[in-house]
Amino acid sequence: MFNIFQYSEDKYKEFVEILNQRKSQQSSNVTEKVQDILAKVKQEGDGALIELTEKFDGVVLKDLEVSNEELEEALSKIDDEFKNILEEAKKNIESYHNKMLQRSWCDFQEDGVFLGQKVVPLERVGVYVPGGTATYPSSVLMNIVPARVAGVKEIIMVTPPDKEGKINPAVAVAAKVAGIDKIYKVGGAQAIGALAYGTESIGKVDKIVGPGNIFVATAKKEVFGEVDIDMIAGPSEILVIADENANPKHVAADLLSQAEHDKLASSIFVTTSKKLMDETIEELKIQTSKLSRKEIIEESLENYGLFILCQSIDQAIELSNKIAPEHLELMISNVTENLPKVKNAGSIFLGYYTPEPVGDYFAGPNHVLPTAGTAKFFSPLSTESFLKKSSFLYYSQEKLNKEGNKIIKFAEQEGLTAHANSVRVRVEDGRV
Amino acid sequence: MFNIFQYSEDKYKEFVEILNQRKSQQSSNVTEKVQDILAKVKQEGDGALIELTEKFDGVVLKDLEVSNEELEEALSKIDDEFKNILEEAKKNIESYHNKMLQRSWCDFQEDGVFLGQKVVPLERVGVYVPGGTATYPSSVLMNIVPARVAGVKEIIMVTPPDKEGKINPAVAVAAKVAGIDKIYKVGGAQAIGALAYGTESIGKVDKIVGPGNIFVATAKKEVFGEVDIDMIAGPSEILVIADENANPKHVAADLLSQAEHDKLASSIFVTTSKKLMDETIEELKIQTSKLSRKEIIEESLENYGLFILCQSIDQAIELSNKIAPEHLELMISNVTENLPKVKNAGSIFLGYYTPEPVGDYFAGPNHVLPTAGTAKFFSPLSTESFLKKSSFLYYSQEKLNKEGNKIIKFAEQEGLTAHANSVRVRVEDGRV
Repeated sequence: MFNIFQYSEDKYKEFVEILNQRKSQQSSNVTEKVQDILAKVKQEGDGALIELTEKFDGVVLKDLEVSNEELEEALSKIDDEFKNILEEAKKNIESYHNKMLQRSWCDFQEDGVFLGQKVVPLERVGVYVPGGTATYPSSVLMNIVPARVAGVKEIIMVTPPDKEGKINPAVAVAAKVAGIDKIYKVGGAQAIGALAYGTESIGKVDKIVGPGNIFVATAKKEVFGEVDIDMIAGPSEILVIADENANPKHVAADLLSQAEHDKLASSIFVTTSKKLMDETIEELKIQTSKLSRKEIIEESLENYGLFILCQSIDQAIELSNKIAPEHLELMISNVTENLPKVKNAGSIFLGYYTPEPVGDYFAGPNHVLPTAGTAKFFSPLSTESFLKKSSFLYYSQEKLNKEGNKIIKFAEQEGLTAHANSVRVRVEDGRV
Repeated sequence: MFNIFQYSEDKYKEFVEILNQRKSQQSSNVTEKVQDILAKVKQEGDGALIELTEKFDGVVLKDLEVSNEELEEALSKIDDEFKNILEEAKKNIESYHNKMLQRSWCDFQEDGVFLGQKVVPLERVGVYVPGGTATYPSSVLMNIVPARVAGVKEIIMVTPPDKEGKINPAVAVAAKVAGIDKIYKVGGAQAIGALAYGTESIGKVDKIVGPGNIFVATAKKEVFGEVDIDMIAGPSEILVIADENANPKHVAADLLSQAEHDKLASSIFVTTSKKLMDETIEELKIQTSKLSRKEIIEESLENYGLFILCQSIDQAIELSNKIAPEHLELMISNVTENLPKVKNAGSIFLGYYTPEPVGDYFAGPNHVLPTAGTAKFFSPLSTESFLKKSSFLYYSQEKLNKEGNKIIKFAEQEGLTAHANSVRVRVEDGRV
């Protein structure tokens, strides 16, 4: 039933093949539809948003913006216990992301040079939040809080309305806790178009973040360059490395928590213990039967689950570095000695008592992570994602006189005589 | 002959229209051709590279890799004076980029939590360097040195061969000075394909940087997500803000140095002094006639040059923030008071004696900058561009027991029962 392997160097290709089957071929059909929607929003503004919301969400809106009354009504539907948990999670996320704030710096040199880097928050950010039955207030926190910490002036959220034209209450309360400025009821590619180009009611933003379906993802890729986007997200995965001291019940539960996300999610288990492997597989069967998302879990585990026996923890980490999983759990006794060996992973969960949901919901690190092997070059969403830099540079007249001829020679080597000229006119005037 | 304006709030739209005319419409024709080339390289590897190099560069190569002998031969063609300038520029670039190195951090909390962020250099980086008659050794330094500073293990360069199948000597020497590991003679979309997918001789990289023509740029956009890329580059620009103390000869020279780049480049001059404006325009005519790239300059200045009279330096900076130029020169007396007001610019050149070429070639900051208004959300190429992050997190058993129920409640609110389960199995086992 499961894909079980004894690890060897040449098996790696097989693993990758299984994982890569998940990468959906983007149909050009979707791209065309999205391009049409984007063009319509660019030309017609709010009118297009109202029209497309009727078409896709089946509701005619009078106002796109969520009013204070509607927000209060949504908030009243959420119990205080959950509000308090949201507040506490928000504090933890804020505290973690505060540590990633960057400062401008300047280097004053004795020879009349000063240079450095200016760090400035983005001005306006748009956060996309999917609608539908499965709504994720945790993602709302994870996308808004870092932008707020970075100092973004205005953060606006877009999310599709339900059949009654209302916003999801859990999403509303999370947005409020995170400190959103404005919420608009619009979803799909049309919402991305509104954020990228601006309409009468929704101002153009500098960056769009947040997850979405294939239409939203395609629209984000289309407008990239017109605005910045967070990342190109693919199917997600967990890789659990466990030694013989790990509890098979815990390991199984963690593999299941990833598998329930969607049919394309992948749970990868790598261990040095045959006994743990066998017991975990038994546990998977027992626990799955009790879970609400049983069908999704079974399909994900059978198709994209990998169960790999390794000879050493070193070998397991080496394999993990090749796969570059979104989530990596190290359920091993010697955490501090092995963490340095991890090169490629979105987020690393250490020890026997840090299952992924601790990070998904509560502890502080961001849960928006590079997926599908992109942890080799992408980083988690962070405070830095909402900061940008400018370099700056000052040369004194004396310093330019000293170095001018080198710069002239360099420019001439490249055939750019006007570049050389802009130094020459100054050096000649300032000859000492 | 020139576009001369008296600034007012409502003129801004006109400026943007003129600048946006430069954004070339990407033809779907190019995209299709590029997709074909990428697919061919992915399937046929080195064979495709040899075949396409014969087709596009008109030369049949035996080896793609530049040999030591060929490199030595290229180096012997470059005079020592230029080599020394390259060495000195490299040291300055290295010194500037060293200041942007980031450290991993860890926060140990008293309640049994530790969390932080691991900073790791990318493993392998590919640098594209255009061929043809106009070659830019300065770009070679600007792309390779920051990657080297970041600690990238292997940096490989790709560049098209000339008609004799040789590499450009100035490019070769710059690559050598910057510390390149390997050089391959292949260009165009096929080179991007080789870097993104890997072939028999060229290993797959994690990130591709470096400028290129429309085929290279389109190929980079196509493979984005499979690997990381540096940025989506558009036509470039300079915006010069000058007060009445500036020398019109200098201002004119700086506007010309941008205009010579290409016909789509834009030089924007904003001043509070009518006298300076008139004198600068006179100077432009005088200096242009003496420059080697006269035709390009005239076309660029007439079509996309902007000459704007403002009432105050504050107003000028406000306008500049809206335009978000790639290069901004502040030729004003009070630099320190005005620098903080600058929000959007790739690189800022301060005072009367820091023309753009000081930064293009020599001083240290990177010259790979966000263009065409993208400085609102993109940053210069930097050491950070070659680093990536993983978050990490540890919870003790006691801490999980304490917080577990909140995490369970959060997961259940989202309908993710397997997430809740992964915490529950631990809390139940560890009940104190």
